[in-house]
Amino acid sequence: MNLGTIFLSETVGTAMLVLLGTGVVATAILTKSKGLGGGWLLINFGWGLAVFAGVTVSYASGGHLNPAVTIGFLTTGSIDFGTALVYWAAQMVGAFIGAVLTYFAFKQHFDQEEDPGKKLGVFSTGPEIRSYGWNLVTEVIATFVLVFVVMSFGKTGPDAVVIEGVPGGLAALGALPVALLVVGIGASLGGPTGYAINPARDLGPRIAHALLPIKGKGKSDWSYAWVPVVGPLLGGVLAALASMVLLPAV
Amino acid sequence: MNLGTIFLSETVGTAMLVLLGTGVVATAILTKSKGLGGGWLLINFGWGLAVFAGVTVSYASGGHLNPAVTIGFLTTGSIDFGTALVYWAAQMVGAFIGAVLTYFAFKQHFDQEEDPGKKLGVFSTGPEIRSYGWNLVTEVIATFVLVFVVMSFGKTGPDAVVIEGVPGGLAALGALPVALLVVGIGASLGGPTGYAINPARDLGPRIAHALLPIKGKGKSDWSYAWVPVVGPLLGGVLAALASMVLLPAV
Amino acid sequence: MNLGTIFLSETVGTAMLVLLGTGVVATAILTKSKGLGGGWLLINFGWGLAVFAGVTVSYASGGHLNPAVTIGFLTTGSIDFGTALVYWAAQMVGAFIGAVLTYFAFKQHFDQEEDPGKKLGVFSTGPEIRSYGWNLVTEVIATFVLVFVVMSFGKTGPDAVVIEGVPGGLAALGALPVALLVVGIGASLGGPTGYAINPARDLGPRIAHALLPIKGKGKSDWSYAWVPVVGPLLGGVLAALASMVLLPAV
Amino acid sequence: MNLGTIFLSETVGTAMLVLLGTGVVATAILTKSKGLGGGWLLINFGWGLAVFAGVTVSYASGGHLNPAVTIGFLTTGSIDFGTALVYWAAQMVGAFIGAVLTYFAFKQHFDQEEDPGKKLGVFSTGPEIRSYGWNLVTEVIATFVLVFVVMSFGKTGPDAVVIEGVPGGLAALGALPVALLVVGIGASLGGPTGYAINPARDLGPRIAHALLPIKGKGKSDWSYAWVPVVGPLLGGVLAALASMVLLPAV
Repeated sequence: MNLGTIFLSETVGTAMLVLLGTGVVATAILTKSKGLGGGWLLINFGWGLAVFAGVTVSYASGGHLNPAVTIGFLTTGSIDFGTALVYWAAQMVGAFIGAVLTYFAFKQHFDQEEDPGKKLGVFSTGPEIRSYGWNLVTEVIATFVLVFVVMSFGKTGPDAVVIEGVPGGLAALGALPVALLVVGIGASLGGPTGYAINPARDLGPRIAHALLPIKGKGKSDWSYAWVPVVGPLLGGVLAALASMVLLPAV
Repeated sequence: MNLGTIFLSETVGTAMLVLLGTGVVATAILTKSKGLGGGWLLINFGWGLAVFAGVTVSYASGGHLNPAVTIGFLTTGSIDFGTALVYWAAQMVGAFIGAVLTYFAFKQHFDQEEDPGKKLGVFSTGPEIRSYGWNLVTEVIATFVLVFVVMSFGKTGPDAVVIEGVPGGLAALGALPVALLVVGIGASLGGPTGYAINPARDLGPRIAHALLPIKGKGKSDWSYAWVPVVGPLLGGVLAALASMVLLPAV
Repeated sequence: MNLGTIFLSETVGTAMLVLLGTGVVATAILTKSKGLGGGWLLINFGWGLAVFAGVTVSYASGGHLNPAVTIGFLTTGSIDFGTALVYWAAQMVGAFIGAVLTYFAFKQHFDQEEDPGKKLGVFSTGPEIRSYGWNLVTEVIATFVLVFVVMSFGKTGPDAVVIEGVPGGLAALGALPVALLVVGIGASLGGPTGYAINPARDLGPRIAHALLPIKGKGKSDWSYAWVPVVGPLLGGVLAALASMVLLPAV
Repeated sequence: MNLGTIFLSETVGTAMLVLLGTGVVATAILTKSKGLGGGWLLINFGWGLAVFAGVTVSYASGGHLNPAVTIGFLTTGSIDFGTALVYWAAQMVGAFIGAVLTYFAFKQHFDQEEDPGKKLGVFSTGPEIRSYGWNLVTEVIATFVLVFVVMSFGKTGPDAVVIEGVPGGLAALGALPVALLVVGIGASLGGPTGYAINPARDLGPRIAHALLPIKGKGKSDWSYAWVPVVGPLLGGVLAALASMVLLPAV
């Protein structure tokens, strides 16, 4: 694939992912939102369908949208390091753009929200019980699940993420398995840390939180920022290695 | 396609969409409904599955059901202006019919509901924080997501909305991607304005609200009515233009 | 198709439908259930997935499971009257069996439940605002949606309900569209009457309620029993007639 | 199939199933979890998508993940007794591993949880109204539904669980029917006993609960442990026998 196409496609897809993903948190927690108090399953479906939309529009690059997925494909040798760098750069740019768009879509609700913790909570994840070591373990396990299952998609058909040649709107259903998977990971393993499971998803919006002129915002919690970067990358590498041993060809 | 077929198909499909869509709001908020207090995710799924049913029955016209989608296809040159006019007229007629049917289905609950705001809320959207400019921004962004992703469906298969030639009930799954997309947009971007993202969905029922002899109804909030018309149309045009630049052929 | 096969298949499928359908109501409302207070969306998904399971196991007869669907196919001439009688008889028998199984699965919860209204509510529907005329209107509209959309499935592929020849587990997804449709109808039009939309689903369990030795049960509300029979049948006929006019061949 | 491949695949798949399945309970009930109080539908979707992920990664062995499913295939003669033993052993090992991983992912939340009943509740099922006989009936009925519907998948296509040869990510949708089925069984029949419907899912984590050094844990409720083993096995055998009589070939 052309590197320019990959960059464009991953930027667009990750922006879509983060707009809808941070958007569902805003809908669920910001003051006066119609979805205020919508609950955990709402957030899980919102993030899952954010993945659905993001992967659908980034068909040209296979819809990684996540440095942990990209490092997984790098580990298995599906892509080379230079290509991975292009994926990563685009994912960070896209995540930043998506977070800025969420800020605009919820501008009045950010202005009237009084809790700075909720403002940051829309953008980035944070643990309920702060313990860097155990928080890291949770992110490693959750991202391992994501990347390991994504790796298995490629074992049962010619290609799991790029979708083409299937008639009609059905082709777009090719993004459904990974969307459902993300709904499930959030429901099941999101309780302790809020399931970043994606360094770009967490770091891009955190930078946006730091830079945007959000009324009454607090700190961007940089001391925690390394956990949702290192954890997912580590989980992605481990999952890729495990997939080579544990997922037989059929 | 025959213009008469398009008119009929879009009328039927949009009536189905608006019946089920306004119906879920009625189920969730009108007094004594069994679904009273069912929450935001219920509303999101209700509208998403309303799209599912509407698109399924309007297979003959490709299931636009939304002037913002139609203006998108007009912008990309998929249809001409005369055809777009037929789509738009049918969508308005269908949306009006659907809203009237919801009134009949919930007649007793409208009669016994004391809050006129809820009665209007079943039919049309309104912002939680009134600010025409920012409300417009929210509708533009949300509709951009809808039309941009719909445009991407057409890139990965012969045709994303018209579904044919797939064996069995599976064919009907061709309407699933856009249904899931609408669940996701509602969950993620519906908090501020209630996600009209469709001028016919909002204006048709608003006219019905104004004309129907609803017991104890209040004003139809015409001062806001232009936002869910202009915002989605603008979002649809922008998404179509963006799709021509950002979504490569594969 | 062989009439014996149809009878067996519809009996099994409707028993499955009613077991899971009445089961989700029991889970959501009976005392000490783990799902107590689970809400409207839980009930909607429960009934929708009950349809999914029921249609899946009654592939041999096309999975009607509902006299309103059968009368629809009779109206369009897809089946003859004698065959329809076999479908109807099987659906009633199956619905009765399914309700009895739910009674056994929740035996202790029925015994300890103090509200006789909830006991009947597990088995059969009842209106929130009793008004036979308007309750009938609601059931007619909701069933119209069901049968009309089901009729449209058959327009876009060789056969919408019987599923065969699709590789792997994907074949079972052929039952997904009608399941999603029922989730949507419940979410959107279930508020006033509890969406019987199926005479067998309501009458079979009502007979079971009358006959079973349920501890502390009340009356079976026979004065309302005709509404969820007549309404769905009328809705089914109207939908079939409308489908012949409004759903063009493609 | 190679017995070593079966062992590895079922171990991996069942570990995935139990990690995500026990994880959603932890998310929904353990102190300070972000999903605390998320409700029954959250738990139903969590377990259903746990099945989705587990079946997806164990494509090499057909994704039984459940001794009740395996005893069903043994009853119909699809596999022999020696092979069934390998499936069962792997399922027990996998379930134990999955439960241990959930303990690590939620370590801090287990430490700070004060209710020992909730700690056990993450791992294993227990009845709301203790009555071994009726609890057994509930588990038999619920597992009958699971295995009977799974048996029907194989009747409408070449193979329902192993998925191959379908293009793109769509292949992974082959695991969706059984996932939806488990969402439905939980929603509909989970109220009384918490739907073990799988001996390994209950016994493996119970052993993990007994062995792990969980802070402030209580007893592992061994007196109930036989119910979620015997009930599902009995339900699986009955469903397999019934499927041979009630599910015609097409």
